Amino acid sequence: MSTYGSLFRVTTYGESHCASVGAIVDGCPPGLQLSAADIQVQLSRRRPGQSNLTTPRDEKDLIHLQSGLEHGVTLGTPIAFLVKNEDQRPHDYSETDLYPRPSHADYTYLEKYGIKASSGGGRSSARETVARVAAGAIAEKYLKLAYGIEIVAFVSSVGKVHLPAALAPPSLTPSSNDDDEDDALSDDFRKLLATISREQVDSHPTRCPHHETAERMTQRIIRAKDAQDSIGGTVTCVIRGVPSGLGEPVFDKFEASLGHAMLSIPATKAFEIGSGFRGTEVPGSKHNDPFIRRGDGRLGTATNWSGGIQGGITNGEDIYFRIGFKSPATISQPQETAQYDGTPGSLAARGRHDPCVVPRAVPIVEAMAAIVVMDQLLIQNSRKTAASLLPPITTLPATMVMPRKVAEGSQGN
Amino acid sequence: MSTYGSLFRVTTYGESHCASVGAIVDGCPPGLQLSAADIQVQLSRRRPGQSNLTTPRDEKDLIHLQSGLEHGVTLGTPIAFLVKNEDQRPHDYSETDLYPRPSHADYTYLEKYGIKASSGGGRSSARETVARVAAGAIAEKYLKLAYGIEIVAFVSSVGKVHLPAALAPPSLTPSSNDDDEDDALSDDFRKLLATISREQVDSHPTRCPHHETAERMTQRIIRAKDAQDSIGGTVTCVIRGVPSGLGEPVFDKFEASLGHAMLSIPATKAFEIGSGFRGTEVPGSKHNDPFIRRGDGRLGTATNWSGGIQGGITNGEDIYFRIGFKSPATISQPQETAQYDGTPGSLAARGRHDPCVVPRAVPIVEAMAAIVVMDQLLIQNSRKTAASLLPPITTLPATMVMPRKVAEGSQGN
Amino acid sequence: MSTYGSLFRVTTYGESHCASVGAIVDGCPPGLQLSAADIQVQLSRRRPGQSNLTTPRDEKDLIHLQSGLEHGVTLGTPIAFLVKNEDQRPHDYSETDLYPRPSHADYTYLEKYGIKASSGGGRSSARETVARVAAGAIAEKYLKLAYGIEIVAFVSSVGKVHLPAALAPPSLTPSSNDDDEDDALSDDFRKLLATISREQVDSHPTRCPHHETAERMTQRIIRAKDAQDSIGGTVTCVIRGVPSGLGEPVFDKFEASLGHAMLSIPATKAFEIGSGFRGTEVPGSKHNDPFIRRGDGRLGTATNWSGGIQGGITNGEDIYFRIGFKSPATISQPQETAQYDGTPGSLAARGRHDPCVVPRAVPIVEAMAAIVVMDQLLIQNSRKTAASLLPPITTLPATMVMPRKVAEGSQGN
Amino acid sequence: MSTYGSLFRVTTYGESHCASVGAIVDGCPPGLQLSAADIQVQLSRRRPGQSNLTTPRDEKDLIHLQSGLEHGVTLGTPIAFLVKNEDQRPHDYSETDLYPRPSHADYTYLEKYGIKASSGGGRSSARETVARVAAGAIAEKYLKLAYGIEIVAFVSSVGKVHLPAALAPPSLTPSSNDDDEDDALSDDFRKLLATISREQVDSHPTRCPHHETAERMTQRIIRAKDAQDSIGGTVTCVIRGVPSGLGEPVFDKFEASLGHAMLSIPATKAFEIGSGFRGTEVPGSKHNDPFIRRGDGRLGTATNWSGGIQGGITNGEDIYFRIGFKSPATISQPQETAQYDGTPGSLAARGRHDPCVVPRAVPIVEAMAAIVVMDQLLIQNSRKTAASLLPPITTLPATMVMPRKVAEGSQGN
Repeated sequence: MSTYGSLFRVTTYGESHCASVGAIVDGCPPGLQLSAADIQVQLSRRRPGQSNLTTPRDEKDLIHLQSGLEHGVTLGTPIAFLVKNEDQRPHDYSETDLYPRPSHADYTYLEKYGIKASSGGGRSSARETVARVAAGAIAEKYLKLAYGIEIVAFVSSVGKVHLPAALAPPSLTPSSNDDDEDDALSDDFRKLLATISREQVDSHPTRCPHHETAERMTQRIIRAKDAQDSIGGTVTCVIRGVPSGLGEPVFDKFEASLGHAMLSIPATKAFEIGSGFRGTEVPGSKHNDPFIRRGDGRLGTATNWSGGIQGGITNGEDIYFRIGFKSPATISQPQETAQYDGTPGSLAARGRHDPCVVPRAVPIVEAMAAIVVMDQLLIQNSRKTAASLLPPITTLPATMVMPRKVAEGSQGN
Repeated sequence: MSTYGSLFRVTTYGESHCASVGAIVDGCPPGLQLSAADIQVQLSRRRPGQSNLTTPRDEKDLIHLQSGLEHGVTLGTPIAFLVKNEDQRPHDYSETDLYPRPSHADYTYLEKYGIKASSGGGRSSARETVARVAAGAIAEKYLKLAYGIEIVAFVSSVGKVHLPAALAPPSLTPSSNDDDEDDALSDDFRKLLATISREQVDSHPTRCPHHETAERMTQRIIRAKDAQDSIGGTVTCVIRGVPSGLGEPVFDKFEASLGHAMLSIPATKAFEIGSGFRGTEVPGSKHNDPFIRRGDGRLGTATNWSGGIQGGITNGEDIYFRIGFKSPATISQPQETAQYDGTPGSLAARGRHDPCVVPRAVPIVEAMAAIVVMDQLLIQNSRKTAASLLPPITTLPATMVMPRKVAEGSQGN
Repeated sequence: MSTYGSLFRVTTYGESHCASVGAIVDGCPPGLQLSAADIQVQLSRRRPGQSNLTTPRDEKDLIHLQSGLEHGVTLGTPIAFLVKNEDQRPHDYSETDLYPRPSHADYTYLEKYGIKASSGGGRSSARETVARVAAGAIAEKYLKLAYGIEIVAFVSSVGKVHLPAALAPPSLTPSSNDDDEDDALSDDFRKLLATISREQVDSHPTRCPHHETAERMTQRIIRAKDAQDSIGGTVTCVIRGVPSGLGEPVFDKFEASLGHAMLSIPATKAFEIGSGFRGTEVPGSKHNDPFIRRGDGRLGTATNWSGGIQGGITNGEDIYFRIGFKSPATISQPQETAQYDGTPGSLAARGRHDPCVVPRAVPIVEAMAAIVVMDQLLIQNSRKTAASLLPPITTLPATMVMPRKVAEGSQGN
Repeated sequence: MSTYGSLFRVTTYGESHCASVGAIVDGCPPGLQLSAADIQVQLSRRRPGQSNLTTPRDEKDLIHLQSGLEHGVTLGTPIAFLVKNEDQRPHDYSETDLYPRPSHADYTYLEKYGIKASSGGGRSSARETVARVAAGAIAEKYLKLAYGIEIVAFVSSVGKVHLPAALAPPSLTPSSNDDDEDDALSDDFRKLLATISREQVDSHPTRCPHHETAERMTQRIIRAKDAQDSIGGTVTCVIRGVPSGLGEPVFDKFEASLGHAMLSIPATKAFEIGSGFRGTEVPGSKHNDPFIRRGDGRLGTATNWSGGIQGGITNGEDIYFRIGFKSPATISQPQETAQYDGTPGSLAARGRHDPCVVPRAVPIVEAMAAIVVMDQLLIQNSRKTAASLLPPITTLPATMVMPRKVAEGSQGN
C-alpha cells in the first residue's frame, strides 16, 4: 500500500491532478533541527524544468509543513507536509482516452480498481515521487547529523552511453572471455564512490560525474527528444558511513529492503547490490572480500565486491548499488496499439514529456536510500540498546564471544 | 525480521545446528487439500546430495506437519511444520574460529548481535531456506488449484556460461553497438517462458533447459570444484496465469515485492524484472508493449518487455525475472585474510561445500515467487470483493469507466 | 504509532496548535460515492461549541479533501484530508508552563521525547480526534452502502447518573446479592440496541436517549462546570448488521481489536464487550446464549450476553460495548501539585475547558467502531473469496462440514 | 492473525488436538541467559490438574526449545518452541457434533472458515494459551534482568465474591450515592500492588491473596462444579518498575496495547486500566493525580488513579489493570439450544471441564503483560537512542525543554 517502513514510517498520497501530493512521516526522532529549506533543496533537484533535457512543466513544488515541528525542531510526532498541484490541466490527455497508453499504468489501474482517474496515470505518475523526496530529505538530515552518513547518487548510463570501464560499477566492466581471468574490482571506481559529492554530480545537467561521458549522454537524450522518442539509463548510488550491523536476517536483509525501495520507484526494472550480476561470474576465490585491520583498529575488507553487505547485514564498508530505469513509456510519436475495446488504431500522446528521466531520478534514489537506512538504523538501535542492558555472561564458549572481545581489546592499540 | 507477508504470512526459524528448522504459515485459505507429499517434493528438489555437483551432506529433510490441518485439509488456522537437523556436526568448523570467513556472515552477525552461534553461520545459512521452500509449496498448491498458476524457474547461466542468445533473458542478449538498432525481444525466449515445465528443468542436474549449455555448465562447476573454488550463476523464473490487477501502488508494486523476496534469498546480488537492465537501452518506441485484442476478447500485449507488470500492477501476461547468485563464499582453498583481532593469516575452510548453488536455488526461487503471488492475490481479492458490493455509479464520466464497459461488452463477440 | 489498520489503514497527524490536523486513509474500496458533506456531518457532531455544556472554542472544522477522489467517487488510492487549526492561541497556556498539568500528558510526553510542544498537549490533545472522526465517516459510508451496517453510540452515564436499569448495559444492572439469582439480560435494553437512531441520540444535548436521565445528566454537568470541576461518563455503542465471521483468531479477536481502538481514544479508562464485568458473575448456565433458528433460516441466539462475538468472531447478532471516559484532567480550580523541578505549588489552569466530554465522544466512538469493522471486513472478504475458488472436497468427515450444509439446505424452507 | 508485536514478535500455532502447540518468538535481545526451566515454571502454573478446582486433564506440557539459543544464551535469532499435545482423545466430543455449543466458537469458526476442526474448538481453545505463556516467560526474563520489572497478577473476584473494599481495585469499591462525596483511592490497595508476590498469590489454589476471600471463592467454585455449572471472575495485575515514556501516541497508547492483549485471551469480556469505570464517577478535582517530588529527585504522583499511564504513556508509577473473564461456556448440565440445521434440542456436553478458569488465567495475564511491555520498551529504546545521538539544540524556548533541565539539575540535590 502507500506506507513504507516500520519505525520510520512514510505514508504518501496524491495523484497528478488532485489538490496536492504529500505524506505523513511518522517516527522521526525528536530534537532534530529541520526547516522547509532542508527539504526544498532536494525537491528542487527533482523538479522538472531544470534544463532543456527535461519536461517544461514548471511546478514550483513548494513544501508546506503541517505538523510535528515547533521552532524548527522536530517533536517526535508525525511530520505532515504537502506540495500543491499548481499545474493541473486535466484536459491535456482527454482526446486519447479511448486508448490505454502502452507500457503505462492506464490499463492495469483499470483492471485493479475497476475505475481510473479521468486524466493522468493516478498513483503511478512520477508526480508521486515528490512525497518520497521530501520524506527522504528528513531522514537524510537526521542521518547526517547523528551519524555523518552521506548518500550520493549519479547517472552511470543513458541508453548505451556508459561511464568508462574504470569508473563503471562492476557489472558494466567489460569481462574477459577467459573464464578464469576475471578483472579485479576497479580501484578508480572505489575511489569515485569514496569521494563523489552532490556538487560534482550537479555540475552537469545529466548528473553524470564524468564530463565527457555526460556530454555524450546529452547528445543521446537530445536525439531521443528530436525523434519524439525516449531513452532509459541507470543510476548508481553510494551510501557512506553506515554503521555495521544493520539489516534483519532472513526476509529483511539490508539489500532486500533496499531493492524493495528502489524497485518501487516508477520505471525501474533492475537492481544490483555490490558486484551484482558480475558477481555471478567471478569465482569465489576472487570475489571474496578478505578482512584487513583498518586504521581505527576495527576490521574492514580489502576489496568490496560485497557492496558493504554480508549475510544481509552491513559491514561498515561503502554500500553501493545500481538501478535500471526503462525508457519512459510516454512518447510523442504515434504508436500502433489497441483501444480498451480491442479496436486497433494509432495513438499519439500529447502534452509534455521527459525524454529521459534518469537525471531527475537521482534525488529520488537518494531519498529512498535514506528512508531505508533510517528505518533499519532505528530497528538495530533498539536491539543494541536492549542487549546492552543485560548483565554480562561469563560462561560462554570463547567461540561465541571471544573474537569480539579480542577485537575490542585491540582497538586500544 | 523473520516474517514475510501481510495476509499470507510466513514466519521462519532455525539455524544450521539447532534442533530443527521450520515455519508457521498463517493465512492459508481453508478447504485446501494438502499433504506432506505436496511439500516434500520441493524440499527434495532443494536438498543437497542430489548429484555430484552439490554438497554430499545427505539430510533427509522430512517435513513434520504440526497444525492447521485435519484429514488432509487446511482449516484456515496457522500451519506449523518443522524439519529436523539430523546432520549437525557442530565441531566441523571449530578450528577456524579465530577467523571471520570472508564474504560470509560471521563478522556481520557478531557486529549485529554481539554474540554468534559457535558453529555455522546462524540464520544466514542456506539451511534456513528449507522453511521457505516448504511454505512456498503450500502457496503453490493453492495457486495451482484455485487459479491454475504455474511457476517454473531454471538456471540461465553458470559463471560465463549462458543460455544461447535466442533463449536468454533480454539483458543477456548481445546488443548492437548502434544506438538506434535494438534487437526485438526474442520470440524463442517468449516461447520458452510459455512452455517450460519442471520436468524439463529437472532433466539435467544443472537445471538448465538447454542441454548443450547444461553440459558446459557442468564442466564449469566441476572446474570450480577441482580448483577448490566456487562459481555463481543466474536463475530465471516465469510465473504463468497470474490475474491482472495484482500489486499495490507506490511502495508495494508487484516487482518491488518480488525483488524484495528474491533479494532475501542467501547469496543473491541482483534482480531484473522483464527487460531489466536491457530496458534501459531500448528506446521507448521499441520498448513499449502495444496492446492487442486476445482470443478471449480481453486486452493483451504484442510484446512483453514489461515482464507482465505495468505501473507496478500485473497485466495478465507472463511474469518473468532473473536473479543473480554470487559465487559461494565458502571455498576450500586457503585465503589470505585477518582474524577477528586483526592479525593477518591464512584461512582454509574445511567441511562440505557446494561449488555452485544455482541448481539448488531453483526451488527456492519458485517458493518465494509463490509466496509473493499468494500474498498479493489475497490483498487484491479483498479489494475486488469489497468494490463489487457497492451500488453501481451511473454518473461518472465515460473516461473513468466507459472503456472498461466497452471492453467487457466486446468479450461476447 | 499514528497508523491503525492493515487493509483499511488510517494514518493521522497534527497537534492542537500546528497548521492543520488530518489523515491519509489508505485502502478505501474504489467506486464509493463520497462527498465532503458525508464527512462534515460527523465532524460537526464532534465539534465543540455545540451547546452550553461544552467548550466555547468555535472551530469551523471544515474538511479539505486532497486526493483519492474524482467526480465524487473514490479511486481506490489514498484519500488525504486536512482540517485547519484556525483557533490556535498558543499563548493561552504560557503562564503555567512551570507545571506539568496533573493527569495530563505534559510530563509523560516530555519523558518520552525529551522535548514537548510549547503550548497544548501535543498529540494527546482531543484535537487529534478530528482525523479519526473524518476517517471513520469514510468507512461508515462504505459499510452502510455495501452491507447496511449501522453504528449508533449514546451516553449511558454521566458521573453517577445512569440510564435506568431496564435500559442500562448489563454491567450497570443492579445485581442481586443472592449468588444464584441473576437477572436475565434486559429485553428493553436489547430493544433499545435494535432500534436506537442518531436522531434520537441527538435530540438532547447530552446525547442520552432517555429524556429524564438526560436532564439529570445536564444538571450534573452544570454542577461540575459551576464548581470549576469536571465529570466523566460512559458511552455505549451498538453495531447492527455486521456479517458473521469477522475477527481473527488468537491475537486479533474482534473484541480485542475493538477494545484497542476504543482505548486509544483520549481519556478512556475501561472497555466492556457484551455482558462485560457482569458476565463474570452470571453462571454459565444462564450466561450462555442458546441457538435458535431465525426467520431467515439461519442460526441466531435467543439471548445476547456475548455481544455479537463468540470465540473472538462475530456471530451476526448486534455488537454492543461500553467505554468509560474519566473526568477531564483540565479543570479551572487551583490544584496543589509540583513544578517540573519538584517545587510544590498551586496550579490554576486557564482557558476553555469541557466539563464533560462524553457527549462529544459519541461520534469518535462511532468512527473508531467503523474503522475496526471496515478493516476486519476487508480481511475476511479476502479469505472468503480465496476459499470459494477452491474445488470442493467431498471426502471430509461430516463433522467438519456437514452441519453447515444442512443449515444451508434449510434456508430454502 | 496469529502474530502479536512489532519488534518483539510472537507468532503462535496449534489447536487442541493437533500434534503440538507452539510459537516463534522473534526479536528477543541477544545475550539473555534462558533455560527451559525459566519457561516451564509459568507453563506449570497454567497447567490444568493442579488442584481439585480445575480440570483433571493432566498434560505434562513440557517445552521443547528448537532454536535461537546456544549454551543457554539467546542469539538474537527467532526462538521456536513446541509443547506436544499428549492427551488428544479427539472422539470425546463426537456425539454432540450436531450442535454448535452455545457461547462457544463452533458456530463462528464454521461461519468464518466454512470448515471446522472435527473435534475441539480449534484455535479458540484455551490450549492455545500455552504458547502465550511460554513466550511471555521469555519476555519476563529479559524485563527482570535488564530493568527489574515485576509482574504479578491475582484473582480479585470469583462470581460475586470480591476482595474486601480496602483491597479491591477502584471500580469495585462501593461508591457513595452522594455525587460529590467520592472515596479516595484506597491506601491498602496501593500497598497491595506495591508488595504482592507470586509466592503470596500461589499460597492458595484460587490465587486470591486474601485468605478469607479465597476460601469463599473456593466454596463458590465448588458450588458451580456440583451444579454442573460454571462461574467467572476477575484478575487484577500490577506491573512494577516500568520506565516512563513507554506507549505510542494516538493508536498505540500503552493502555490500548495492553487492552488489546488482554482482550485477546479467551473468555475475556472487560478491561479496566487504573481507576477504570470508577474514574467516570470521580470528579476531576479528586481524580487528578498531583505531582510530587520523589526520593530520587524525580517527579511521581501522590495518588495513582491513572494506573501508571497518562496521555497513553507510562509515567513510572505502578501500572495496574483488571480483566473480566466470563463464566466458561462449557458446562455439563443439559442446555436447550438448536442444532446447526436449526432443529431445537437439548445438548449435554461431556468430557472434562473447568468450572472456573480465573486461577489458571493468572499466568496468562502475566505473560501477555510481559509481551506488551517488552514490545513497547524496544520501540521506545530505539527512539531514545536515536534522539540521544543528535547534537543538542540551544535555541529552543525554555517552555519546550527548560522544565526538563531544571528537573535534571534537581536530581543532584
